[in-house]
Amino acid sequence: MDTKKKITKPSPVSGFPEWLPEVRRAELFWFDHIRTIFEQYGFCPIETPSVEALDILNAKGEDEGDDVDKEVYVIDRLHKEEGDKEARLALHFDQTVPLARYTAQHFNDLIFPFKRYQMQRVWRGERPQAGRFREFYQCDIDVIGVDSLPMHFDAEIPAIIWEVLASLPGMEEEKIQIQVSNRKILIGLLETLGCEDIITATRIVDKLDKLDKNHIIALLRDDAKLSDDDCKTVLALASIKSFDSSFADKVKALGVESETMAEGVEELAFVMDQLADLPEGSVVADLSIVRGLDYYTGTVYETRFVNDPGYGSICSGGRYNDLASNYINRHLPGVGISIGFSRLFDRIRQKGQLPALGISPADVMVVLPSEEQRPLANKTARTLRQRGYNVEVFHSGSKIKKQLSYAERKGIPYVWFPPFDDSSDTHEVKDMQNGEQTPAEASTWEG
Amino acid sequence: MDTKKKITKPSPVSGFPEWLPEVRRAELFWFDHIRTIFEQYGFCPIETPSVEALDILNAKGEDEGDDVDKEVYVIDRLHKEEGDKEARLALHFDQTVPLARYTAQHFNDLIFPFKRYQMQRVWRGERPQAGRFREFYQCDIDVIGVDSLPMHFDAEIPAIIWEVLASLPGMEEEKIQIQVSNRKILIGLLETLGCEDIITATRIVDKLDKLDKNHIIALLRDDAKLSDDDCKTVLALASIKSFDSSFADKVKALGVESETMAEGVEELAFVMDQLADLPEGSVVADLSIVRGLDYYTGTVYETRFVNDPGYGSICSGGRYNDLASNYINRHLPGVGISIGFSRLFDRIRQKGQLPALGISPADVMVVLPSEEQRPLANKTARTLRQRGYNVEVFHSGSKIKKQLSYAERKGIPYVWFPPFDDSSDTHEVKDMQNGEQTPAEASTWEG
Repeated sequence: MDTKKKITKPSPVSGFPEWLPEVRRAELFWFDHIRTIFEQYGFCPIETPSVEALDILNAKGEDEGDDVDKEVYVIDRLHKEEGDKEARLALHFDQTVPLARYTAQHFNDLIFPFKRYQMQRVWRGERPQAGRFREFYQCDIDVIGVDSLPMHFDAEIPAIIWEVLASLPGMEEEKIQIQVSNRKILIGLLETLGCEDIITATRIVDKLDKLDKNHIIALLRDDAKLSDDDCKTVLALASIKSFDSSFADKVKALGVESETMAEGVEELAFVMDQLADLPEGSVVADLSIVRGLDYYTGTVYETRFVNDPGYGSICSGGRYNDLASNYINRHLPGVGISIGFSRLFDRIRQKGQLPALGISPADVMVVLPSEEQRPLANKTARTLRQRGYNVEVFHSGSKIKKQLSYAERKGIPYVWFPPFDDSSDTHEVKDMQNGEQTPAEASTWEG
Repeated sequence: MDTKKKITKPSPVSGFPEWLPEVRRAELFWFDHIRTIFEQYGFCPIETPSVEALDILNAKGEDEGDDVDKEVYVIDRLHKEEGDKEARLALHFDQTVPLARYTAQHFNDLIFPFKRYQMQRVWRGERPQAGRFREFYQCDIDVIGVDSLPMHFDAEIPAIIWEVLASLPGMEEEKIQIQVSNRKILIGLLETLGCEDIITATRIVDKLDKLDKNHIIALLRDDAKLSDDDCKTVLALASIKSFDSSFADKVKALGVESETMAEGVEELAFVMDQLADLPEGSVVADLSIVRGLDYYTGTVYETRFVNDPGYGSICSGGRYNDLASNYINRHLPGVGISIGFSRLFDRIRQKGQLPALGISPADVMVVLPSEEQRPLANKTARTLRQRGYNVEVFHSGSKIKKQLSYAERKGIPYVWFPPFDDSSDTHEVKDMQNGEQTPAEASTWEG
């Protein structure tokens, strides 16, 4: 045993948040809530390992052409022996790539359409910077079909997400809006305009929320080689919005003929019609929404705070034709969305809007009048637990004032007083909210 | 878009298990169950990041003197730029080291005794070998006090664990036994015998479940420099067992005088007396239990299948005097236990004893008679969901036989038939268990 230890107060690791118990309780409350709604719609849970083979993660990075592969955390055994031949592993950076791999790997054991939810941590090894998480939770739902997947899922997914976001405790005051578009509309337009680098052009349009219009026009002209007129047409398209399917008329007014465009308009109109029951303003057809990821092939979603669109999308997704084509010789179209859980949760936490749940999950704290009364205190606690209450017995026969203060600081709503000695058998319970103390029996009391 | 893609069927990564949805549902059921019981006793949840600074993990490795540091997975950004100066990070290999760091770091914001539960994945970068997980879940409870911590927690912890293990669905047929000892007894004996390398001697005794007695005697003689007579005394001590506090008489019969031993005997007798209410045979005082980890200073626990002790301990822990002394100038004694969740779960899974929950969380599948009836099917589903049922609407107006088969394969217990056209308004529901089909109304039906 060392007698002189070096004391080093540990400091938080940047980008890896952790919460005090009362915040963790609210976080679990959110997870339970989200899971309940996902299951109400028949989505089944899966969980994949935290790691994938680096090849699998890179397979996506390639397609994406941007900096995703820079964000990967690889893992390595600290004391790997020379000659150990193992596949290189890395922490997953989203839940979509693992889902594609999972679906292909377990194809014969799954029932399609495969409706799954997944709520896990993901990791992005970004350069450390204030307010960016390197470890965070995502909550995803996806539906994957074999050969085809009905379009009504493209409407069901945002309807579920709306229900989740609108009902999370702490979100009551937040106005949010789901923005829906369909990539076929922009891609059809670009094809018809004769654009030779559609991927670059869509990525430029995707930056409309960050750059001003003149900058976008310059990029479209210089990088995507569009004429000035065509740039204007693209921007006119991207400025179309409507709360119903009337966006279709505005697209028609552009006067561009394209089968792909027409298909996209029809699909988006179908989705908007299906969502007509949602509260006014909750969903908008917004043709500026493109998503940077090239695997989206039709419907795309983003979600913003109406009063703070600059915070970025808190919930994004879309339809993909064939995400698992690297792994399986079947056509597996899907549609899904991902809630950026930790970013959303942390915002609501910082605004002080989380439900105040107290530090302890206990409903009742049983006072320990003295060490002699411990068997009775334990028995009382047992009876209450069997009736569904969470119960803590105070840990020592301290002064009552100290015991009450402990219950108060931990946010325990009821304090139970067993008889202080054998001369009485009357129990009492104190409501910490209003201070009232009344006789009670553990076998019948209702808190 | 590539036209020729290389198809590579993904294979599982050794040591990183993943489950099909029906198994994941059982796993979530277990987690919920464990969490419910932990909260019933007033333990509050925390979660720490998946990583710690490598220094923090190594601080423990040093004390432990064995191969723990070999097991650590370090993480690294794949495209770290030259000159990036960041602390080296590694995935945690247990939840005790992170708890110690957490308690020290948030000391001023916590209420003591700090009773917390934690259910997370941990990682051990062992050499790949059959049946060993490199990523797995642990479910821990610990209580940490400031300056002192009442002994009754040493009894409460195994009582809670007993309740958890005995009530997990699938464990009904498994006989388990919690083995409790107190390190002070063996350490006191070794001190009195004049043993000069107590750490080595305790580590040798800890191997009693793996090596035969002669081997242990040889090791005690050669490595711990004990005389033959002393080896026999140590082995006599380690063979003492009792289902109550009568072990104390057997220890006394060894005829060794030691204050430390007497203290350990008294503490263990107290724990056994406190646990007298548990079913016979569920807890045993077993002085062969030592635990390899040197930070345990008093009570120690292991847990075995009575009919398969060779499977090893599924749930271990103990009391530690001061785990956070590297980080804080306060004395923080604690006691805790960790359920080796994944090992336990996987055993019950392999024995086919998991609860059969079905693939889907849906209670009801609503038939889609035709695309025209979709609004009615959706409305029916909505009504049922508002009443607390999990409901899936079939995705296309396929043949009824196909829809029924889907519900059956997914294990959905009820199939709901809305009227097939406007000529009727009678709904019916089919109980998939007994095949009975009866008229029903979504607003009143009870499933």
